[in-house]
Amino acid sequence: MNKTMIGHEKLRLLILQVFLKNGFPKEVAEIAALNLVKADLRGIDSHGAARLPGYIRLAKAGRINIQAEPKTTRDTFSTAVLDADGGLGLWTAKEAMKIAIEKAEKYGSGWVAVNNSSHFGIAAAHAEMAIEKNMIGLAMTNASPLVAPAGATQAYLGTNPVCVAMPAGKYPPFILDMATAAAANGKLEIAERNGKPIPHGWAQTAEGKHTDEANTLKKGGTLLPLGSHADGSYHKGYGLGALVDIMSGVLSGANFGIWVPPFVSFLDVNRKDVGKGIGHFLGAWRIDAFEDAPVFKNLMEQWIEGVKSMNKKEGIDEILIPGEPEYRMEQMRRKEGIPLNEKVYEELMKMQ
Amino acid sequence: MNKTMIGHEKLRLLILQVFLKNGFPKEVAEIAALNLVKADLRGIDSHGAARLPGYIRLAKAGRINIQAEPKTTRDTFSTAVLDADGGLGLWTAKEAMKIAIEKAEKYGSGWVAVNNSSHFGIAAAHAEMAIEKNMIGLAMTNASPLVAPAGATQAYLGTNPVCVAMPAGKYPPFILDMATAAAANGKLEIAERNGKPIPHGWAQTAEGKHTDEANTLKKGGTLLPLGSHADGSYHKGYGLGALVDIMSGVLSGANFGIWVPPFVSFLDVNRKDVGKGIGHFLGAWRIDAFEDAPVFKNLMEQWIEGVKSMNKKEGIDEILIPGEPEYRMEQMRRKEGIPLNEKVYEELMKMQ
Repeated sequence: MNKTMIGHEKLRLLILQVFLKNGFPKEVAEIAALNLVKADLRGIDSHGAARLPGYIRLAKAGRINIQAEPKTTRDTFSTAVLDADGGLGLWTAKEAMKIAIEKAEKYGSGWVAVNNSSHFGIAAAHAEMAIEKNMIGLAMTNASPLVAPAGATQAYLGTNPVCVAMPAGKYPPFILDMATAAAANGKLEIAERNGKPIPHGWAQTAEGKHTDEANTLKKGGTLLPLGSHADGSYHKGYGLGALVDIMSGVLSGANFGIWVPPFVSFLDVNRKDVGKGIGHFLGAWRIDAFEDAPVFKNLMEQWIEGVKSMNKKEGIDEILIPGEPEYRMEQMRRKEGIPLNEKVYEELMKMQ
Repeated sequence: MNKTMIGHEKLRLLILQVFLKNGFPKEVAEIAALNLVKADLRGIDSHGAARLPGYIRLAKAGRINIQAEPKTTRDTFSTAVLDADGGLGLWTAKEAMKIAIEKAEKYGSGWVAVNNSSHFGIAAAHAEMAIEKNMIGLAMTNASPLVAPAGATQAYLGTNPVCVAMPAGKYPPFILDMATAAAANGKLEIAERNGKPIPHGWAQTAEGKHTDEANTLKKGGTLLPLGSHADGSYHKGYGLGALVDIMSGVLSGANFGIWVPPFVSFLDVNRKDVGKGIGHFLGAWRIDAFEDAPVFKNLMEQWIEGVKSMNKKEGIDEILIPGEPEYRMEQMRRKEGIPLNEKVYEELMKMQ
């Protein structure tokens, strides 16, 4: 697959231009562009510029409200519900995280359930807002139904990612950002684009047999929860995906389960609504509500040095900390540029 | 393996008697006994009466303080830190959860990090306290280092369980209670007791090779994180276990990583302390801070009915909800009694 190398600032401007051209307000477009570039910088290529046509397609179909005005509809000291007014999740989730951080500043922690929203991009873009405030950030979202519960052959859950981000002193921040499926759909898309098989344990056919076909989802197949099979405890991955769906969808008043309006174009738009739009759940704990931040950071350094000192498997040079591979990728791509898939680049240029 | 059938109330009194005889105050002994019986009722046989000798061994060794007086050492509106004074985790974690629930009642959510504690039993026993208050409860703890980070051949993390519990209307509560390893150590203990091999993916040898030997941990082997191997995304299970260690240990001021004082007798007591005792993290969100509780419960019923209606794999009769297998086991064992392993029963009688 040919790649086009592009600087991150140039990429940001190209993406920004597309959002603006399609009617998004400047503030929303700026945040959304940064969010997509962040994904490409971190090496989450499925969630960067490659997703831009999807957002624009939904905006044109009226399924994303470009003039959205999110409103808080319920509020306690440490919690709130945000009705995102159908807005772009890349932006509305950041608005929600701002509220969570304000509450954490005052009350020790803050939690915002968001309904009536849309695809929010990489969870890390929202959770990491907590880091510079010396907080621990949490972000999760439900998503297009692609994952079968343990024992099922039909998709009920999204890949339902969850991210927790926190500072780690002199080391890169600890950022666990993971789909609760064995593999995110983006990984299947990449394998399919490259004409490669996928490892057993990522997906099953419509009949519930493990498969190595990267395009199985388009033939009625489903992704498998983390754990992949009964012996691998895939009921745990299913339980985690369920939890994310409930916190993001059920608790917020958004759609959940098979009723989540799909982002991927190969799924039909849902037949009925059980809530509003898709949902997110975001929040933050203030570190010094538990421990002085410098002490916490010092202990995090010790924690990391402890992990790094463990004996390694043959062929493994270094034990990595959650978020470290993405951090290194970002450092490299900031300097050397982002290798955009040629098709993604062509589409981006067409949209200018 | 022979079993002795015993009624749950009789079992509770036998366990209670042992805690009292060993000097635990009545209130502590009552809660601890209920906690262990709860585990046996729910079918988590590794965490019930079978663990009683372990707690008594630690109390006799002075590693659990029978006269502990837990104290809140830091406090904001929605958060607190509890120094458990070396007390019995089965009880101190419930004290912490009480504080979290009180805070959630007033401020929407409540979070308590606990240090200087000891093994807290099944996480569900603490998280489920939130259910009758119409809250969503969270409980996690770090534990004896038995799990290797992704890429390592040495244990740095415990099986570090996490539980989230919430009401689900007319259905049994949703209770996700899971070790972040592919399998908890209790499952290896059971296989070893029965002389059976374990599935590939649960554990590796000291050299980092997958093994089906149930006693591998006693020969320098380690448990594997959920996901089991690189293709199965075991970096995610590692990340979750790390997160539980950080929230429970680093944030609370307890020990973490390889410095967590071990509960299992085949590990040496740690050489140094990086904090106090072992740590937990508990909390609760008030449901009506987000949505009226009756509405939430009604939506949970819809969520559950949706899952149940999915097409099933061959040989699967029903898709289960997290907590449902344990709920059914509890209903059955409350009526028919608890089948105690004969060795466990004998030890229990010897301790009277």
